[in-house]
Amino acid sequence: MLKAININDKLNKFSDYWSPKVIGEMNNYQFKLAKVKGQFIWHSHKETDETFIVLNGELIIEFKNEKVKLSKGELYIVPKGVEHKPYAKDECHIMLIEPKGIINTGNRSSELTSKNDNWV
Amino acid sequence: MLKAININDKLNKFSDYWSPKVIGEMNNYQFKLAKVKGQFIWHSHKETDETFIVLNGELIIEFKNEKVKLSKGELYIVPKGVEHKPYAKDECHIMLIEPKGIINTGNRSSELTSKNDNWV
Repeated sequence: MLKAININDKLNKFSDYWSPKVIGEMNNYQFKLAKVKGQFIWHSHKETDETFIVLNGELIIEFKNEKVKLSKGELYIVPKGVEHKPYAKDECHIMLIEPKGIINTGNRSSELTSKNDNWV
Repeated sequence: MLKAININDKLNKFSDYWSPKVIGEMNNYQFKLAKVKGQFIWHSHKETDETFIVLNGELIIEFKNEKVKLSKGELYIVPKGVEHKPYAKDECHIMLIEPKGIINTGNRSSELTSKNDNWV
């Protein structure tokens, strides 16, 4: 019997915030898990859309003129090139889906810039 | 306030089996929901990997020499070109992620071949 990727098992393997961990690859795309809390930074990804799925908790994604609130079981696809800033009042668990090689802070360098291609 | 895509709301909008419904697009990829029950057919997708995420219930994916069982909150990425046959003893809800234009029965034509690019 092959083994499926269990999302909760993977979430239990790390606790640091804003540091996406890769759990699988589909073609040149990656599935990443992240725990987030507080404010991230404004950034964009000029080369790609980016998908957020909320697994636990609540995430706000701010855009320059509006925002979207994601609860557990909701997803949002941020269009490429669009400036956005994720925010979670309380700890929130998310899945990110995007091409391999995408840096979490996109066009901005920051102390929040995370190691890329970091598997868990 | 922009509106997130709520997976359960989308699942409540259809009841037919083995007929994937698109809920979002990321670059040239699509997120699809499907309700499945019983046996699907053997097929492969020679051009792409295909991701299955189980949202409710339990899914078996059979391969020629082994199989994988996915419970709620588990995912599996079927490599491109690999013959596979999904099966669910009881009703199961899944999310599929794959490039736009992929036909559910891949290289096989069947009464289970579904309309493509069918949004819900």
